[in-house]
Amino acid sequence: MRYLSGLNPVARVAEILPQIKRVTDVEKVAAWDAAGRVAARDVVAPHDYPPKPRAAYDGYAVNSEATPGRFRVIGTVLVGQYRGDLAVGSGEAVYVTVGAFLPDGADAVVPEEAVERDGEYVVVKARYEKYANADPPGSYVRRGTVMLSQGTVVTPFDVVGLLDVGITTIYAYRKVRVGIVATGDELIVPPIDPDTAAELVMKGKVIESTASLVAWYIQTYMPYVEVREKVVASDRHEEVRAVVDKFLAEYDAVIITGGAGPSEIDHFYKLGFGGLRGFRMKPGRPTSVAVVGGKPVFGLSGYPISALHGVIRIVEPVLRHMANVTRPPGLGWVYATVTQDVHGEMAQVVRVKIEPGEGELYAKPIKVKHHSFTEPEAGGLALIPPGGVKKGDVVPVLLYRDVRRSGTGPP
Amino acid sequence: MRYLSGLNPVARVAEILPQIKRVTDVEKVAAWDAAGRVAARDVVAPHDYPPKPRAAYDGYAVNSEATPGRFRVIGTVLVGQYRGDLAVGSGEAVYVTVGAFLPDGADAVVPEEAVERDGEYVVVKARYEKYANADPPGSYVRRGTVMLSQGTVVTPFDVVGLLDVGITTIYAYRKVRVGIVATGDELIVPPIDPDTAAELVMKGKVIESTASLVAWYIQTYMPYVEVREKVVASDRHEEVRAVVDKFLAEYDAVIITGGAGPSEIDHFYKLGFGGLRGFRMKPGRPTSVAVVGGKPVFGLSGYPISALHGVIRIVEPVLRHMANVTRPPGLGWVYATVTQDVHGEMAQVVRVKIEPGEGELYAKPIKVKHHSFTEPEAGGLALIPPGGVKKGDVVPVLLYRDVRRSGTGPP
Repeated sequence: MRYLSGLNPVARVAEILPQIKRVTDVEKVAAWDAAGRVAARDVVAPHDYPPKPRAAYDGYAVNSEATPGRFRVIGTVLVGQYRGDLAVGSGEAVYVTVGAFLPDGADAVVPEEAVERDGEYVVVKARYEKYANADPPGSYVRRGTVMLSQGTVVTPFDVVGLLDVGITTIYAYRKVRVGIVATGDELIVPPIDPDTAAELVMKGKVIESTASLVAWYIQTYMPYVEVREKVVASDRHEEVRAVVDKFLAEYDAVIITGGAGPSEIDHFYKLGFGGLRGFRMKPGRPTSVAVVGGKPVFGLSGYPISALHGVIRIVEPVLRHMANVTRPPGLGWVYATVTQDVHGEMAQVVRVKIEPGEGELYAKPIKVKHHSFTEPEAGGLALIPPGGVKKGDVVPVLLYRDVRRSGTGPP
Repeated sequence: MRYLSGLNPVARVAEILPQIKRVTDVEKVAAWDAAGRVAARDVVAPHDYPPKPRAAYDGYAVNSEATPGRFRVIGTVLVGQYRGDLAVGSGEAVYVTVGAFLPDGADAVVPEEAVERDGEYVVVKARYEKYANADPPGSYVRRGTVMLSQGTVVTPFDVVGLLDVGITTIYAYRKVRVGIVATGDELIVPPIDPDTAAELVMKGKVIESTASLVAWYIQTYMPYVEVREKVVASDRHEEVRAVVDKFLAEYDAVIITGGAGPSEIDHFYKLGFGGLRGFRMKPGRPTSVAVVGGKPVFGLSGYPISALHGVIRIVEPVLRHMANVTRPPGLGWVYATVTQDVHGEMAQVVRVKIEPGEGELYAKPIKVKHHSFTEPEAGGLALIPPGGVKKGDVVPVLLYRDVRRSGTGPP
């Protein structure tokens, strides 16, 4: 059993990482296109946001020290409008909608349903504190705050948070470029007539799905990798070699599926690159990796589950390393144990920090004042049922950071 | 506070489901295009697979009763080849590669590294049992087995399993078609120059991200829904109304973001559809839903986190109902407690059934003989470390079915 002699423990994949070239190209990327990209520098807030007090409620912007009182309404500022010309004196008010910056001189908002209108005047009967119903300057973010650390994979939630405070570009590493070649004379490749395909399967043919599953996993769980090409080759070794050579010239990494058994058809072996050939994993023993000019060439089984196992244990840690990822993204709903009481009669969603414990995940609620998502510590959104929860209760959490214990190694 | 009077408990969303039209259109879909689609009928295996014994190893196909012995090699069947002309007599052998159907007369495979070659003969020294190194007929699936039940959302894993056994078409419901309209005079819409956008944010403008986040969540977590259109409208109510009317005519559901506060700008209220206006949820109180001619119109906050909360609590259960989903898909890595020992020196991946328990998930290993994924009971792949695990140990699991406790209600 040529290929089974000297199978490698899966942990040995770490040994080849130093031979592999990381991506060093850095690009300026618009924040709205940044989901899935890896931050190449810390993303630091260049200014306080909001720059001025911002209405958190529809109503009348006034100077809090003049409340209670009677105010003449001198204008309107809707969200999105900018009225540098407008300033309120102590007996004046300006109508504002949620999100509008307050005019100079105003520092609080009286809800519109809490005033009495009297012609061009409004009457405010209660005392309103400074910043009542308003987000103070810098309350979303302070200049100099690290919003995303270098190596973080930007999630759709981060994008929202960046845009919210006016950060519209980030520096990101170029994506890792991968070519996938599925090998096998037995493969039939969609699109084809489904009935014909079904008949061929009953005569021993195989509908290509392994390389498609591998590509799907990469696209879903490794958004920092770009599958540039996926081709199907016959088992003629010269054909496979030509594709691999082309991919090595053009991309950062090559994945071969199929032709990995002990038979004469053994493309990875015939390529002659050496490397780690076979791992102590089941299924997926033929999984292999070699490094050619700093670029990894992976050999995976032709069977879907075996190939996917190879991707999870061997390919993912290598590509993550190449992509400079220190903080991978997460997906999906999980259950987690809340670390403190959360009160409230209404159904709530709260941002949480996620920490793996013994056999469970802990969700630590993070106090946030604003509506955006980028809290450097947060990794998910917890759903709190009506009536709140007690410390130790379990709640569903929508993750956006990976919760696997190791950031760079296999899960 | 017009819109806060009489807020609805979130559970009331269930009351409107009977008024909403489910999708009834059914299409024949190629299995390789079926990921994300909802099975409209049970998917039943139309035949045993494999139809004949299938090589599980590269080597020599023989009749097991003639082992040990000396066999004349009369031919070769590589995976994907079909040799109806070839049959082995008791002193004969045929070279086969993994996945090939055995020729008539053969019922076992002797690994190629276990024979001695002697010219056109091979010598087999040991006794091989029937089906040794071969998958028996029907071992992947038996004719009549329900591979996917009606209402199941097809995952990429199911696709692999269906193709593996030669099921190339399924009947699926048409996707639910949704139009999204983001409203707000304050919105600036990418693509635009990022520096200009950043300046505008500091003058009170808002870069559109709420509707984009909503669309992303739908595309990622509700693949059975198609976001057909996403447009941005000003706060001129006539403009919003025209878009909503168009979407109601063309699609199954409409989502409006923004313009949902207590101010004069309140598109959902002005549309006059009635419905459930405001929910007891925080953030996201203005979340609303009305039913117009059997189609839901949702009003969501203009703030990203508030709108997303509305999607999770109110929109998702309604769209899931419309799509006829009884078994939603899952995504992501979670931790789960294994329910029995798993032995083995090698690193393994095993299919598991996932069951939510008190505060944790349980992963019950499922014995599978073949390489494909579709096991009706399975919902994830568990990673078993080298050396195996004991009952009660916690392992990472890649989910492909939803683990939230309720299939149709809010999480």
